[in-house]
Amino acid sequence: MALNILIIGGVALGPKAATRAKRLLPDSNITMIDQGTYVSYGGCGIPYFVGGDVQQMNGLRTTNAGVVRDEAFFDSQKDVKVICHMRALSIDRKAKAVEAEDTQTGEKRTFSYDKLVIATGSSPRIPPIPGADLKNVTSVTCLEAAQAIQQQCAARKINHAVIIGAGFIGLEMAVALADMWGIKVTVIEMIDHVLPAQLSLNFAQMAKHDLEELGVTVYTAESVKELKGKDGAVCQVVTDKRVIDADQVIFSIGVTPNSKIASDAGLLCHPRGGIMVNSHMQTSDPDIYAGGDVVVVRNLISGDFSYLPLGSMANRQGRVIGSNLGGVQATFDGVVGSWCVKLNKLHFSGAGLTLHQARQAGFDAVEASMESYDMAHFYPGHTPLLLNVVADRQTKRILGIQGVCANGHAVKARTDAVAAMLQIGKPTLNDLSNLEICYAPPFASAMDAINIAGNVAQNVVEGRHNAITPDEFLDLWRNRDKNNILFVDIRPPKAGKPIEERHPGQYLSLPLEEFKQRRGEFPKDRPVVLICNSGTRAYETQIKLRAMGIEAPNSEGGHTAMKLRGDEKEF
Amino acid sequence: MALNILIIGGVALGPKAATRAKRLLPDSNITMIDQGTYVSYGGCGIPYFVGGDVQQMNGLRTTNAGVVRDEAFFDSQKDVKVICHMRALSIDRKAKAVEAEDTQTGEKRTFSYDKLVIATGSSPRIPPIPGADLKNVTSVTCLEAAQAIQQQCAARKINHAVIIGAGFIGLEMAVALADMWGIKVTVIEMIDHVLPAQLSLNFAQMAKHDLEELGVTVYTAESVKELKGKDGAVCQVVTDKRVIDADQVIFSIGVTPNSKIASDAGLLCHPRGGIMVNSHMQTSDPDIYAGGDVVVVRNLISGDFSYLPLGSMANRQGRVIGSNLGGVQATFDGVVGSWCVKLNKLHFSGAGLTLHQARQAGFDAVEASMESYDMAHFYPGHTPLLLNVVADRQTKRILGIQGVCANGHAVKARTDAVAAMLQIGKPTLNDLSNLEICYAPPFASAMDAINIAGNVAQNVVEGRHNAITPDEFLDLWRNRDKNNILFVDIRPPKAGKPIEERHPGQYLSLPLEEFKQRRGEFPKDRPVVLICNSGTRAYETQIKLRAMGIEAPNSEGGHTAMKLRGDEKEF
Repeated sequence: MALNILIIGGVALGPKAATRAKRLLPDSNITMIDQGTYVSYGGCGIPYFVGGDVQQMNGLRTTNAGVVRDEAFFDSQKDVKVICHMRALSIDRKAKAVEAEDTQTGEKRTFSYDKLVIATGSSPRIPPIPGADLKNVTSVTCLEAAQAIQQQCAARKINHAVIIGAGFIGLEMAVALADMWGIKVTVIEMIDHVLPAQLSLNFAQMAKHDLEELGVTVYTAESVKELKGKDGAVCQVVTDKRVIDADQVIFSIGVTPNSKIASDAGLLCHPRGGIMVNSHMQTSDPDIYAGGDVVVVRNLISGDFSYLPLGSMANRQGRVIGSNLGGVQATFDGVVGSWCVKLNKLHFSGAGLTLHQARQAGFDAVEASMESYDMAHFYPGHTPLLLNVVADRQTKRILGIQGVCANGHAVKARTDAVAAMLQIGKPTLNDLSNLEICYAPPFASAMDAINIAGNVAQNVVEGRHNAITPDEFLDLWRNRDKNNILFVDIRPPKAGKPIEERHPGQYLSLPLEEFKQRRGEFPKDRPVVLICNSGTRAYETQIKLRAMGIEAPNSEGGHTAMKLRGDEKEF
Repeated sequence: MALNILIIGGVALGPKAATRAKRLLPDSNITMIDQGTYVSYGGCGIPYFVGGDVQQMNGLRTTNAGVVRDEAFFDSQKDVKVICHMRALSIDRKAKAVEAEDTQTGEKRTFSYDKLVIATGSSPRIPPIPGADLKNVTSVTCLEAAQAIQQQCAARKINHAVIIGAGFIGLEMAVALADMWGIKVTVIEMIDHVLPAQLSLNFAQMAKHDLEELGVTVYTAESVKELKGKDGAVCQVVTDKRVIDADQVIFSIGVTPNSKIASDAGLLCHPRGGIMVNSHMQTSDPDIYAGGDVVVVRNLISGDFSYLPLGSMANRQGRVIGSNLGGVQATFDGVVGSWCVKLNKLHFSGAGLTLHQARQAGFDAVEASMESYDMAHFYPGHTPLLLNVVADRQTKRILGIQGVCANGHAVKARTDAVAAMLQIGKPTLNDLSNLEICYAPPFASAMDAINIAGNVAQNVVEGRHNAITPDEFLDLWRNRDKNNILFVDIRPPKAGKPIEERHPGQYLSLPLEEFKQRRGEFPKDRPVVLICNSGTRAYETQIKLRAMGIEAPNSEGGHTAMKLRGDEKEF
């Protein structure tokens, strides 16, 4: 008898599971119900629709061939029955049936199944603060909300938007509103830096500066206490530090899994929410699969359960479920947490754990940063590429990587490679030093940034490279009148000399090429801190000084990092 | 006592080994001798210097900070003694000494060592044909030759260049000469397609067409028999098929390792040339290291010994040698053969084995191609990205990947990820389907090209996807008057209808969206072959037809592949 497959939820995972299963089992009956108006859309594209890169909302709902994926499309091309405006209410596992309700008519319907897929996704977090229910306070996780904001923008009704939460969507929306519509945008983040789940402080400062270059105001380590309204619409955001005028507020502080229907049905869920599944994406009931934003996944690096609501993961898991429904064994073993984001002029990407996450997971973790280029330094158009490696001190196992570059695909190439290694093994820093990525001068250096990152991290972990972060350097620099440090600039004289002239006795220009003749100028009775353009020449100098009995820390990423952080003005 | 390290050869591996060792052992004495005028240069950048992207030859010899890496640089900044114009003649392992000769004065010198590094590199292959020694016949593997050609170009003395060998350097030089200087360029390749060691026929045809769009003439499956001269300079190239006028001939048919000095000294070498080393890059004499173009490496996929002369590998191996010399354990376990190349408008990259190489290595190998985009299909500026996966039929182990895209860094990102997996494990197609690369719409699709490649390959290997290559499709199409096949175009009508009108009764436009109504038009008494835009919609149709009892092969990459190959004119 034909298999009867029911899928609850039709945004990302649902359609993928449905179509794959149907191709494998042409005789099966597949029904997909969704509570919304639209199915099978690219929610991750919302900021690009609001920002005008994607001109029509339907652009997020079309196939590569330009056909809109609506109920008729799934009927005619995929032989999958799609029912919109149909909210699932409960699962009767014994009767193998789902009770649902038509959101327009209120009519109840019962759908029976042989196999069920729960793809109910997630809901945006809304903090329990006064005013969160005011008009023009929203989150942008569905097409309807996106369209509303886009129409407000086009009608010039938004003058000052406040975005609460500096994660991906928050920052992408900030760029969309500021860049395309010239709206005054303020981002507020509770943690002390933007992209807190993805970056350490240093690269986050670069992200912040990149947004500021676009005119976006960013407040970190600041909590929103209340939204104030006028005539029912939001007019002010009150934080623990200030009051900000606002006629649009967007929450982007994360999402929570819509797993209540599963826990109500007795399916195993994580205490913090999210359905537990095995590597075949089966729930604790083998006839019920789940995936996407509604499930908890295993982090392949920490081994911990984690929650990673990403459209790409939902798509891949959807295919795994479709395969298993169709009798073709497929597994999804876990995630390494790879990501990328386009901001203003800079692009960021990463995979694995941040230093903070690695330490939380119990590793004796250390991080090391470097600066090189996206292509050979002699090839025209090359631009700085900075990488930060997180590794375990004892085993030298790589735990994570983050990168930043104005060439997004280039930094992605490096982090993709590490993500791939993390996914199928336990790579070490030696593997990174030897990583054999594709090389030709228009695309990489002979000793590529990724290899240098491995080399630098080894030197740090093995105690040869005494590196400090730009934040640590700046802290010393700002206290230079108290700490008596001599800051030595190893770059060519034209770069360092002007700073020396502004800060005589505190900042010395002493290029590597003059080291042999001038090494006597390094004091033995006063602490020395080194900086160059990228960190390389200062490291070379650090070793020479060590042989002379002088131990001088080196500022990671040198002045290139300072420039990208917007801190060059301090010198 | 201070360690005495001698390095023979100073281009890529030598300087890296020298400087790393010196940083680890500041007290050591390190001497590097080289027979040429220049050391520490980026030989891979030669085509970009000849083509004008790199304006000054010294651009290939400078550090990131713009300092030329000459003898004085190594003396003052690296504390490494460099002696140019000094050719090593023999190694006396018992006495631990190298006999050398000053190439300018003929004077002999003996260098003693505690540890020796052989970094003698490779020499270009010159075929034993008449006329190979004529004037204006060269190869471009050193800066001197590059400068000579560049000066000839600038003086407008080259009108018609013939490049023999369609490997990386040959094709990069073809682009450089044709694009920058407007020189008439002909490339001749003995094998039946360009980049024969990197690509299968299909992508190679795209590379050939990309060169032809620039005005380059490409002859494949053609052997050069003789070079004819006039007044001592080359004037004609005679092949087994034609005679071509030429005033410049460039050989780029590969290189051979300069390992004679090692074999003469009794070090273990491969029968076909190249020094054998262990994973610490030690030769059969533990006091002698070797690396770069002069050694044989292990291919991590096939397990076979292989020869991979690449500047990037030399750099990484150089650091491994430097580490081991300096007492820091480091290993180099082998290669996966990753590569990339920028041609005219298209960029190609890959890793691992081609189908041909995989079969030669004894695998039951199969390949599968697909077409998608470098970024989300709704994101502006997206461009086709095609991938070809080589896998073992039984184990579904990934053996290799090749890609092509007008966005070079984007195709590199995908192949870098696979290269990384191949380097530390034995990834399967399931790993590729689940590969978690960094995702955001400006950089990838939610179901990314790399995942689709894994999915398509699984469907091919498991017998669900009946795919034929564009070459196989064209072969059927060209014989359509004999084979009675009905070719069915699954794209929207505006794409397929005009072709149907030109070829009534042979080519039918039947879009996927009309399948339900028109499926009766598929004949049961006549063979059917499918084609769409990328392969996706035709695969969907193939499955629907199979359920109807009709088995219809699908042309991989669809009409997008045909366009990139320059074959769209056939329809």
